[in-house]
Amino acid sequence: MKFLLAPDSFKESMTAKEAADAMERGIRKVIPYAECIKVPMADGGEGTVQSLVDATEGELYKVLVKGPLGDEVEATFGVLGDKKTAVIEMASASGLHLVPRGKRNPLLTTTYGTGQLIKAALDKGVNHLIIGIGGSATNDGGAGMIQALGGKLLTLDNEEINLGGGYLKLLHKIDLDGLDKRLKGTKIEVACDVTNPLTGKNGASYVFGPQKGATLEMVKILDDNLSHYAKIIKQQLGIDIESIPGAGAAGGLGAGLLAFFPAELKRGIELITEHTKLKEKMQYADYVFTGEGSIDAQTLYGKTPLGVALIAKEYNIPVIAFAGRIGDGVEALYEHGINSIIGILSEADTIEKALKKGPENIERTCENIARIILLNK
Amino acid sequence: MKFLLAPDSFKESMTAKEAADAMERGIRKVIPYAECIKVPMADGGEGTVQSLVDATEGELYKVLVKGPLGDEVEATFGVLGDKKTAVIEMASASGLHLVPRGKRNPLLTTTYGTGQLIKAALDKGVNHLIIGIGGSATNDGGAGMIQALGGKLLTLDNEEINLGGGYLKLLHKIDLDGLDKRLKGTKIEVACDVTNPLTGKNGASYVFGPQKGATLEMVKILDDNLSHYAKIIKQQLGIDIESIPGAGAAGGLGAGLLAFFPAELKRGIELITEHTKLKEKMQYADYVFTGEGSIDAQTLYGKTPLGVALIAKEYNIPVIAFAGRIGDGVEALYEHGINSIIGILSEADTIEKALKKGPENIERTCENIARIILLNK
Repeated sequence: MKFLLAPDSFKESMTAKEAADAMERGIRKVIPYAECIKVPMADGGEGTVQSLVDATEGELYKVLVKGPLGDEVEATFGVLGDKKTAVIEMASASGLHLVPRGKRNPLLTTTYGTGQLIKAALDKGVNHLIIGIGGSATNDGGAGMIQALGGKLLTLDNEEINLGGGYLKLLHKIDLDGLDKRLKGTKIEVACDVTNPLTGKNGASYVFGPQKGATLEMVKILDDNLSHYAKIIKQQLGIDIESIPGAGAAGGLGAGLLAFFPAELKRGIELITEHTKLKEKMQYADYVFTGEGSIDAQTLYGKTPLGVALIAKEYNIPVIAFAGRIGDGVEALYEHGINSIIGILSEADTIEKALKKGPENIERTCENIARIILLNK
Repeated sequence: MKFLLAPDSFKESMTAKEAADAMERGIRKVIPYAECIKVPMADGGEGTVQSLVDATEGELYKVLVKGPLGDEVEATFGVLGDKKTAVIEMASASGLHLVPRGKRNPLLTTTYGTGQLIKAALDKGVNHLIIGIGGSATNDGGAGMIQALGGKLLTLDNEEINLGGGYLKLLHKIDLDGLDKRLKGTKIEVACDVTNPLTGKNGASYVFGPQKGATLEMVKILDDNLSHYAKIIKQQLGIDIESIPGAGAAGGLGAGLLAFFPAELKRGIELITEHTKLKEKMQYADYVFTGEGSIDAQTLYGKTPLGVALIAKEYNIPVIAFAGRIGDGVEALYEHGINSIIGILSEADTIEKALKKGPENIERTCENIARIILLNK
């Protein structure tokens, strides 16, 4: 019997690989010679670097970069097994979790560290970047990133504008002569699940600014600044990024990537599916096991279990999804290839204890589901 | 497809019937025309009256009786659907839960209320009693019970001995002339899962006395008193109950039932299985669903899921057991007919919240297990 094991990570409990390993242990207790193909998954959000590295037997690297407020942070990126593709999560360098609640201020936060992370990846000799852009602390349109990579964003007085979304209004001239040359031959794919434009009421500042610490007053300044930024880009680079869907992702980093590089925005789960070769690996599987820490109505919107199920559905392979938490509204998932959703908890516990027991819980649950599967063979 | 649904109660969350109803709802969401035979189960412990009444469409009755310390309590008994069989839990009248921790004293507690409960059952015209004797607060050898039913336990001065295990030493003469005549034609089956003798280091007082509030000093008195009690019974009734396995159950109530009635001690689960006609109802079932609030290593010792599974094993019907808590050591259950053990929790919760969500959790879990079963048809 062949099982494809393609869970996402169980946040704060297990990486996707650890979950897949535990699934395998559970199945093997019942069906010792089961063929278990493990594909650690992600959806472009947190855990994407780890999962793609695990899925392709790549390598993780750590590098010191400027954090969102300019202080040094240790960020991580990965190089996949092909040694030609790097995977980066912008949040690792410029994420909201790096800024204490009281200091959150998107007038000041910058994507500079994300640019440094890209540079560090290029230093590994890759010619292909996968960039996940969720969870940002920033609203600078990717200006910091481009400055870190050698682009010059100059004021009327030919001085570099300061870092932070609050200074974009001073941008007068873009000079890309010093831009890292290696970017030319580099394919850039961006995992992006939001479709917000750069500016306006549905734009980066209005929709995501407040959760990054912006007051309404700040939101207005930030939105105005991004408009100015887009105008200068249009004038000088000939690219109109203001209303492209996804341009507003990650405080306009989406726009920056589209403006300065031949980047392509893709749905996170599709990107991961492609790079893990999930479709090929799934062929001839009898069962697909997937899962995530929490499965609920949100799962329908591009989360891993759904992405995995949509592919399984093409092949008509049954999918069983495992979760630590099963929320409301999961019924809709049954229409999209998920056949069954099973909770893994062993008892009423605090979240902390439940998170700790993740591997043993998923192992035991998969064992017992395999026992049911076996009944019918 | 035919499902036999035979859960125990999920303590403090759902009765066995409520659990079976929720199982049915879950299955029917997936297999609308599934045949669901519901058999609310119990193992002779708490919930036995409710489950047997539910399983046979009988009736519950409430009656005021003397509690363990003599104050009035409301106790419950049931008459089964055949209208000829009553089911009683001694704990309902004489249970430890009825005595606040600070007042627990088996020198004083009595089974008098249990006798009243039997009398009330006889008033309903039954000729068959099923008595569950777990959870007692008493150590009186069933003396109070027999007094409530008209037996006279007299001192040297021909006075009734006081209620409570502390007074048995004064017993000099047993006079059963006034004993309720209806007991003669009544079959009495006692659900009893312990095999302790009445007296000695493995007897009622030493093993169970301390948890009922006895100090070591009290234990010695109580044990000595039960010895005396057994001696008088042997002398006057010609029955030696002192070392019969189970005589020490419920503070010697086991011994009292054996001494004064033609009672039969049986394993709780076997009694319930018999009276619910589980075996007959199970025939031709494709799947058996069982369950209990907690499933762990203890389940092996006469708990409902095991009892149900042993019968299913005879017919080679697969058994899936559902639980709110899955403890250590459940692997042994796989050898005894339980094919799979599935947790029902939807998320990390306090026990209070988890108990409240019992019905929805078991419904959702059974739905999703039915979805897996359906994969293979």
